[in-house]
Parts: sequence; C-alpha cells; structure tokens
Amino acid sequence: MPRLPRTELRALCAALLTAAGLAPDRADAAAEAAVYADTRGIGTHGLHALVTMYVPWVRSGRVDAAAETAVVSRKGATAVIDGGDGLGPVVMTEAADLAGALAAENGVGLVAVNRSTHFGAAGYYAHRLARRGMVGIAMTNCGEQGVIPPLGGSRRLMGTNPLAAAVPAGPAPTFVLDMSTTVVATGKVNQARRDGAAVPQGWLLDTHGNDVTDPGAYGEGTADVPWLGGRLATGAAKGYGLGLLVDLLCGPLAGAGFGPRREALEADGPSEDRDVGHVCIAVDPAFLGDRDRIADRSAELLQTVADSPTAAWADRVTYPGAPEAANAEAAERDGVPIAGKTAAAAAELAAELGVAVPPAFAERTTR
Amino acid sequence: MPRLPRTELRALCAALLTAAGLAPDRADAAAEAAVYADTRGIGTHGLHALVTMYVPWVRSGRVDAAAETAVVSRKGATAVIDGGDGLGPVVMTEAADLAGALAAENGVGLVAVNRSTHFGAAGYYAHRLARRGMVGIAMTNCGEQGVIPPLGGSRRLMGTNPLAAAVPAGPAPTFVLDMSTTVVATGKVNQARRDGAAVPQGWLLDTHGNDVTDPGAYGEGTADVPWLGGRLATGAAKGYGLGLLVDLLCGPLAGAGFGPRREALEADGPSEDRDVGHVCIAVDPAFLGDRDRIADRSAELLQTVADSPTAAWADRVTYPGAPEAANAEAAERDGVPIAGKTAAAAAELAAELGVAVPPAFAERTTR
Repeated sequence: MPRLPRTELRALCAALLTAAGLAPDRADAAAEAAVYADTRGIGTHGLHALVTMYVPWVRSGRVDAAAETAVVSRKGATAVIDGGDGLGPVVMTEAADLAGALAAENGVGLVAVNRSTHFGAAGYYAHRLARRGMVGIAMTNCGEQGVIPPLGGSRRLMGTNPLAAAVPAGPAPTFVLDMSTTVVATGKVNQARRDGAAVPQGWLLDTHGNDVTDPGAYGEGTADVPWLGGRLATGAAKGYGLGLLVDLLCGPLAGAGFGPRREALEADGPSEDRDVGHVCIAVDPAFLGDRDRIADRSAELLQTVADSPTAAWADRVTYPGAPEAANAEAAERDGVPIAGKTAAAAAELAAELGVAVPPAFAERTTR
Repeated sequence: MPRLPRTELRALCAALLTAAGLAPDRADAAAEAAVYADTRGIGTHGLHALVTMYVPWVRSGRVDAAAETAVVSRKGATAVIDGGDGLGPVVMTEAADLAGALAAENGVGLVAVNRSTHFGAAGYYAHRLARRGMVGIAMTNCGEQGVIPPLGGSRRLMGTNPLAAAVPAGPAPTFVLDMSTTVVATGKVNQARRDGAAVPQGWLLDTHGNDVTDPGAYGEGTADVPWLGGRLATGAAKGYGLGLLVDLLCGPLAGAGFGPRREALEADGPSEDRDVGHVCIAVDPAFLGDRDRIADRSAELLQTVADSPTAAWADRVTYPGAPEAANAEAAERDGVPIAGKTAAAAAELAAELGVAVPPAFAERTTR
C-alpha cells in the first residue's frame, strides 16, 4: 500500500478540489476532513470519497461549487444552516465550528443543517469539537435516499444514518465513536462484492430473516443490511430506533429531506441522496464543572477499561478512538497509507485535471 | 393478570411511597413515573420497581427520603443538579423539567445530575419533554456498579447505561426510544432464570464467545450479556461505544460515579450502584423552524415507515413508541395490567405499611 506524507496528501486533496472548481478555502476545509479519515484508518471517507464522489460531483454540478453556506437563523443556543447544495464537508465544518461557538457562549450549542450533501466521516466533526475541549456530537441522514428498510419492512426507505460523538480525555486518546446505525455500512458490503469475498454472518438477511453471505444479494435486492442488533430478539429495534432518531433530527427538525416520505412509498422508484440534513451538538464541560478534572476523570474511565483483563476470545480491550489515534500516529511517522486502487484513481484524476501527481502515486497510473 | 384503573394504581404508588417516608409531592412525582411504565407495558420499571427497590430503599435509608434536590450551578443553557442521594425518579423529573425550561429560553438545554439513584424508565423523562412539544433525550449510568464487561474484557466494570429519546409527531404516536446499550437488559436475563426459561441465542456469550442459553450462567459469572450488536463482526463496538458515551456523560461530565475506576480494577470486589449520574437534553423545535410543521413532517416520516410493506418474516412495521401508545390506550380503557406476583407483593407491602389494598389485588395476598 503506497504511503504519502500527511502534508503531501493534504495538498493533493486540496489541489484536486480546487482544480474541480472549489474556492481554495473550501477546498482546504474538505481536504482536512478527508486527510483526517485516511490518517485514522477510515479509508472509505478519505481520498477515496474525494476521488469517487466529491470531485466528480463538483465537476458535474451535482454539488454547487459556488454555494454560500447561509446561517438562516440563529436563536438562543441554536442555529440553522442552509448548505445551498454545497459540498458536505465544507458545510458541516462550518456547522461544527458554529456549534462550538454557541457552546462557548451558552454551555451547549445545536446547529441543524439542511440542503447539504455527503459529509464524509461523522467522527471528524465530533473530534474537531473535542480538540477545543468540548463534547461533540455529529450526525447525518442520507437525504431522500433509501438503502435500508425499516425494521420488519421490505421497502428501502431509510439511510444508514451515521452518528458520532467525541469526548476529550486529557492525556488519554480522545474518545471518538463513529458508527452507522446498521450492523455495517452498505459500502462495506459493496466492497466485499468488488473483492469477490463472502460477508460475515449477520451482515445480510433475506426477507425470511435467513443469513446471506453473498454480498451480491444486496445489490440484487434479495437481502438487506440489518439494523444494529441484527434480529428482533437481539435488539434490532434499538439500532432501528437510533436510525429513526437520526432521521427525525436531521430530516424534519433540520428542515432537510428524508427517505420515508409519502411519495417515496407511492413511487417505489430509485431515490437520491439530495437535501441531506446534519445535526451538530457541542457541550462545553467548563459550564458544568472543572474542565481539566472532567477530562482527567474521563481518561480514568477509558484507561481503566483499556487496562482491564481480557476475555478468552479477545486479544485486548480498547475503546473507540484509541486504535484510530494509534493509526494517526503511525501515519504521521510513516506516511498515510492509501489503498493501491485509490492511489491509481487519484493519480489518473490528477493527471486529467492538470494537478501534480505525487511521486509515490505516479507508478500507479497504469494499473 | 389483574388490572387496576390508572388512577387507583397511581394512588397506590403514591400511598406506598408516602407511607415509606417520602413527602407527598415527591411521592406523586415518583408515582407518575411508575404508572407511565406500567401503562405502556414496561412492567419492570413500574409498580414492580417501586415494590422491589424504591420503597425498600426509602425504608432502609439507602435512598434519602428527605433529600433536597439542589441546582448547584446554572450557567447559560446548562445546569448541574446534586440529587443528594434522593429517589431517582424525583430527582430526574426535576432535571427534565429544568432542561425543558432551559430549552424554552435557549432552544436547547442540558442538565447533568449527580448523586442520584435508579430512575426507572428513561423514556418517561424524554416523553415528558415531548409532551411539551420538545425533543427530549435522557440517559443514566449505573453509578459505580459493574454488570457488563467492556468489549473484549472479562471484568464487569460497566452498566447497561440506558438511553432514551422522544420526538413529538403531531397526530401520530410520539416517537419514544428507550434502550439499554446492551443486547438486552440484565433484568430480563434474571427474569428468565426465575421463570426457569432458556434465553434466546445472542443474549449471553461465554468467555470464548460461544452462545449460552442458560440464564443461570449470568449470575454464576460464566457468561455475559453482550453489547448491542452482539459480536465484533456484527457491530458490538457500536453498542459498547454508546455504553461508554452514556457513562462518560453521566459519570465524569455530570460529576457522578462510574464503574470503571482504578480502584474497581484493583479491588475486583462487588460494586454498588451509588452516586448514579443522569443527563437530560431538551430541544425546542420552535427555535429551528415552525414547530407544527416539524411535528407534521415527523409524523409523515413515522407513518410512512409504519405503512410500508412488510418483509416475509414480519407481521407489521411499527416504530418505537407506537406499540407503547397502544398499550397506554388499552390500559386507560381496561385498566393497567400488573403481573400477578407484583400485585401480590404490592398487596403485602400495602398491608404491612397500613395502606389500603386495592380490591383487585386483595385476593393475591395469599399466594
């Protein structure tokens, strides 16, 4: 797997987006989010997302490169942002920073976003707030797109509706939870299909509730990804409930689109992830107590679980955010690992757009 | 199963708590929370909890009947409440109402609670806010108690850490999610043991990660309840992450106790659910848009999923809060169903405390 110094990857991402038509400051914001994902080992939401979605979307006009993110209301500790169909990471970075500003003023701040697009790794925005010493919560629905049926349903009306939260932990790696509300993100099923691999039991269920391990069944519509919990008996109503909660907050509350609309039920046609909604919540611990003491106690909690004895089936105990922090450290030292196919695609796109191809990627242009 | 008119059940709950030593207004608040649980079909958190935990705790002094709930800080849109070891439902009702007041003023409000006790059904507090037209979020940790090991661990350091959220939906039943962050609450495993029944596959795993269906294994310490998601491959890190998030917010942030403390790791002794922490968040949709329109769109979302076609394995599609609303309607009409054993225990406790035994329960006193 080719490795690229962090600064070089960041420059490449920014250059690709700028060449596609984005203003430099916006390209920078989106590049930062992409590099965060790649350095922490979330390869699906880094350069890969930029090459396969963001740059093509800006070039095709599906994303409005010139969109002005507009704060349409700011009342009390809340705000609503109209993303203007702009690039998700640009819009959500602004929303997260505004939530942080509202929390710095009021102890808690909530920003709801409508008319946005795919925003990448939800954990980035939560973690961005944790870096300011705040608790950060970030979530997104999938606009009007339907990829997962409601629990017990057969019609794909909902999104995978990711949810992230970050909590500062002083000397310990920041707690960063970043999860879809389904057993697995649909992207991982499609990746398995491209790799010709079977998926683990529990990733797909057919309409009778039987396990399916052929990832192709998802694309064919004969199997679906279950809600977190898997089956009804093992808590699937909880994952489903979390998915609905994210949709209710990012859709109706934020004034954005959502999958389960009357017309979607009547039409049963393909759905688009347009008018995506996000919500970001920030909490400033300094309003509730001593910020350092709270962070130290959070570190005690997290380090105690990490230091606790393991079950026979496990090698170690860790917590969300800690392995990713180790990945980021390794990436800083050894360069950011980029999947070969992504490097090749990035190199080709760079050549096409007249952007300098990083030497580490150059050899990849001819697959 | 005996049924009791709602008002009679409420009076019984209040009378039992008053007889145990609680002031009438506090007894009323706790009775309301208990009746909510029983009317909606959450039998573990209604009269049963009152008879098996709350009344005995007040009588033994484990819960301080005279505790004054103190708002120790109120800054911006946040507040911290010291529960003074008072009864959880009394303390959390006050916290939820304060969160609502803060949200009415600021659009969003957050109240953190420390030194509280078991608060019953988390959904009650979230729903209480939804009745005021707000989005409500309520969560609790389990104090210093350890009943679930961290993912991959063998030491029971964490709680089941329930999380609830409610969203108003105009004409449709309110969305009310109320979930532990584990596959199942430990109480259900213990109930199966008392009933002599096997538990479904997925409720218990041994240290090698094998399924266990004997509920006795949990009490013997040879099997544990997994985090929501079950195994690592099916998303257990997500349920575990949610459990940690609830603990970080209700423990360190709220200034309350938490299970994973250094001393707990060193001692490996039994742990107590003392110094329980809660967090309540309220959001007033009126700050973000038109409140009625948001509720109507939420209703559209929820009713669309409920009206969507079913998978072959399912009888119907519904959403969290809808079946419970139907239960509440039936309870209003036909009386609140109370499990026979709970009715008998309540009747005995009533007789002991000199509280009038409802006629429907009287025949139960001799088992």
